[in-house]
Amino acid sequence: MNGAQALIRTLADSGVEVCFANPGTSEMHFVAALDTVPEVRGVLALFEGVVTGAADGYARMADRPAATLLHLGPGMVNGLANLHNARRAHTPVVNVIGDHATHHKTVDAPLESDIDALTGWTGGWTRTSTAAASVGADAAEAVAAAAGGRIANLVLPADVSWGEGGVAAQPIPVQPRSTVEDSVLAEIAEVLRSGESTVVLLGGGATRERGLRAASRIAAATGVKLFAETFPARIERGAGLPAVDRLGYLAEQVQWQLTDVRHLVLAGAKAPVSFFAYPGKASELTPDGCAAHTLAEVGSDVVDALERLADLVAKGVEPLLQAESRPALPSGPLTPQNWTEVIGALLPEGAIISDEANTSGLMIPMTTAGAPRHDVLTLTGGAIGQGLPVAVGAAVACPDRPVICLQADGSAMYTISALWTMARENLNVTTVILNNRAYAILRMELTRVGAEAAGPKAKALLDLAQPDLDFVQIARGMGVSATRATTAEELAEQFAAALERPGPHLIDAIVPSLI
Amino acid sequence: MNGAQALIRTLADSGVEVCFANPGTSEMHFVAALDTVPEVRGVLALFEGVVTGAADGYARMADRPAATLLHLGPGMVNGLANLHNARRAHTPVVNVIGDHATHHKTVDAPLESDIDALTGWTGGWTRTSTAAASVGADAAEAVAAAAGGRIANLVLPADVSWGEGGVAAQPIPVQPRSTVEDSVLAEIAEVLRSGESTVVLLGGGATRERGLRAASRIAAATGVKLFAETFPARIERGAGLPAVDRLGYLAEQVQWQLTDVRHLVLAGAKAPVSFFAYPGKASELTPDGCAAHTLAEVGSDVVDALERLADLVAKGVEPLLQAESRPALPSGPLTPQNWTEVIGALLPEGAIISDEANTSGLMIPMTTAGAPRHDVLTLTGGAIGQGLPVAVGAAVACPDRPVICLQADGSAMYTISALWTMARENLNVTTVILNNRAYAILRMELTRVGAEAAGPKAKALLDLAQPDLDFVQIARGMGVSATRATTAEELAEQFAAALERPGPHLIDAIVPSLI
Repeated sequence: MNGAQALIRTLADSGVEVCFANPGTSEMHFVAALDTVPEVRGVLALFEGVVTGAADGYARMADRPAATLLHLGPGMVNGLANLHNARRAHTPVVNVIGDHATHHKTVDAPLESDIDALTGWTGGWTRTSTAAASVGADAAEAVAAAAGGRIANLVLPADVSWGEGGVAAQPIPVQPRSTVEDSVLAEIAEVLRSGESTVVLLGGGATRERGLRAASRIAAATGVKLFAETFPARIERGAGLPAVDRLGYLAEQVQWQLTDVRHLVLAGAKAPVSFFAYPGKASELTPDGCAAHTLAEVGSDVVDALERLADLVAKGVEPLLQAESRPALPSGPLTPQNWTEVIGALLPEGAIISDEANTSGLMIPMTTAGAPRHDVLTLTGGAIGQGLPVAVGAAVACPDRPVICLQADGSAMYTISALWTMARENLNVTTVILNNRAYAILRMELTRVGAEAAGPKAKALLDLAQPDLDFVQIARGMGVSATRATTAEELAEQFAAALERPGPHLIDAIVPSLI
Repeated sequence: MNGAQALIRTLADSGVEVCFANPGTSEMHFVAALDTVPEVRGVLALFEGVVTGAADGYARMADRPAATLLHLGPGMVNGLANLHNARRAHTPVVNVIGDHATHHKTVDAPLESDIDALTGWTGGWTRTSTAAASVGADAAEAVAAAAGGRIANLVLPADVSWGEGGVAAQPIPVQPRSTVEDSVLAEIAEVLRSGESTVVLLGGGATRERGLRAASRIAAATGVKLFAETFPARIERGAGLPAVDRLGYLAEQVQWQLTDVRHLVLAGAKAPVSFFAYPGKASELTPDGCAAHTLAEVGSDVVDALERLADLVAKGVEPLLQAESRPALPSGPLTPQNWTEVIGALLPEGAIISDEANTSGLMIPMTTAGAPRHDVLTLTGGAIGQGLPVAVGAAVACPDRPVICLQADGSAMYTISALWTMARENLNVTTVILNNRAYAILRMELTRVGAEAAGPKAKALLDLAQPDLDFVQIARGMGVSATRATTAEELAEQFAAALERPGPHLIDAIVPSLI
């Protein structure tokens, strides 16, 4: 057994079933070894940003990590943007980063670079394997390290990969999340009973069903208001689940949502901050005179904490559940609102939404609130180009659920080759491109930062027209069937038809810009 | 004048005429300030890998840096692969990396990351501007730092950009390259006169006309053999110039090229090393018993050194110049050889070739050797996805010269949105996609590393079929006219037609894989 075989055998035994890959020469023994471990599926992507984003989407849905296979430093850098998003999502990811053979590191070959700088950038856990005999044990530790919601980087020199004497290692039991002390629960219960205006901010596992139900019981019993963090890694919502609004993207929205709030209880979420800085505006958005209280740190067992807190303050109280309710199917030319009504009217049971609709998606939370139960995966770290890859990963994790990718045009172009992987793997992903032919969010931000006096050169840098992007042709060029919708009726017909058929489909929805 | 205006004013005064950009909110004041400096052209790319690759291609042709505009750490990471190639090419690049406002750095906003780790990874020069009053001076230093062939990173916090009190700085005179001592020239002259088998390896500026002419005089006078480094940043070649073969990509090729060589004279190049490591094979390729002599270090004035050396050993000797000679136009279905004959037969005078044809391009150096004079820009760092962006930059630098991008299919997909920038800027780029529907180089490498026993999962990870990529549709989707060629006649007709028309065109050439 060589090192690569021991590594993959250990990954499989540790519960890793998928490896999203874009390999190079230094990874050839790893690639060859995949056939020796039937439990691990290899999924090829044509760009590392698709690899890492897919691993993020997979783990958000599967609740266990996928592996990635990346080609030295210059391959890894292409995957860093979506690893940034995965880090912000607290997603477990196990990166296998091929490196030159140990004896080749000293000759400064063309692809040589400082991999440590890159693994450091991702945060999390890093190890460089030094021998075929120990790489199995390294892999088991990598999976265990990732399990808490971290990125684990295993650097695999080619000679460790091809060296004989590999030993598969036993899986390492996952450490339970840290639990919250009773005394903390008692203090928070005191705050909730104070009668003062209180918001509970839900993040991490608290935006999944159990957490939401407990939080809803607490709100029903005490009158506190619930919000989810602005960009949850995964939020379960729709008819039959408690409905919780997310904090807004803009600082002004958050300030309005938190008006007159005296207590902010943090349940697996951080205190809100402005996404960007603006001249003369605050960065921290907890209002003056509002006390922040931590119920559960990010990464601790927030679901358990909410359930125990509910038992303290809401014994016998039931959660408030969203009733089924859908918008009527609209008609006429597409608008920033009516396309979201189409989605709300037709969203299928059990859908997974990968949401990178950005400005075009402002109304989506409202128009889908009463749709059948579904999951939403959001852009956690602000590094655009996440939507399509996360949809790939979610569809690999959940082949029996329909995946809907709501994708802004500008961001789509960062990782557009994800469409090819959807075609190759015949994934059930319906992509709706919100094609407003602009970086619309930047048009808004240009004004908001006070840079109003923009001339033609500035405007051209925010404009995606000249030429218009034709996503129908781009998708077909990558083997994905595609259609264009300019009216609500066309979008409805195409969306419904796409959901009927297995495999991927893309709708190029020509939607005017909000701004 | 705010900081951004002072910065751009200084860039212009320091000779920077183009800014390749993919901005975000933290860069909005920079974007707005572009209109205040007419001399600096903004060129939008839809992905940072296109931004940085274009800056590399621009500077290789213009011999002065372009600026880039990148959006915080998560935007910069997308540009790192082509910055790696630029670093290996010793290209001057000035990156302006927007960052959060200074007071916003502490709140761990979603896009916050360790930018220092990334700038460190690129090597070169880095500074974080701290005040609007000094950012002009920082910019002048950045341009000066880049001029030696380095990457200069200027981190620009948003408050420095929007702050008033900016002061444009005077340009800093470029430091001349270090010159080689007479004693070194005398020692090398001794080697050349020894009569022992000697190779002079040319790199950096030595692969441009003046260096080549001097080297050719030396070879003609002393009988030494000349090679260019495997992946020159820019090599001038064709009829009327000295013809110099490049060292091969494979270690075996280099070993064959250096058989029985006793002296290796390094002229602006490093001693050859294997691109990758292979079990049981050498990393350093200088043969046993061959002495390496450094005529000029990488980065020093190698052209001056070669000219002075020629005056020592080849007084009155003329260089040997390539005669004009073109292959006949071939016919029949495309093959790995005949497509290169089409290019050789039709290559126009003054062409710039951006070469990322990889395995498909093996014959290109032979079939274009006697074509009219042209420049070739190669994949210097092995980070794939360089060809299309470098073509963009070369075409911006040299609007009156035809740019030919010879581009492998798999690598094309890394930075495919470069096509959109070609369309927007109406660049004279003719792209020939060598569509062999495989990572053909990896099929070869899978065998070469000794991983022969590859099963179906391994083979699938090297295969770009299922579905086939249709580059005609992809290109048209981005506004670039496109055609498909399956025979030599079709390729010849389409290539000639594309050269006649202004603006970009793409030919999807269906070429069987060599392997």
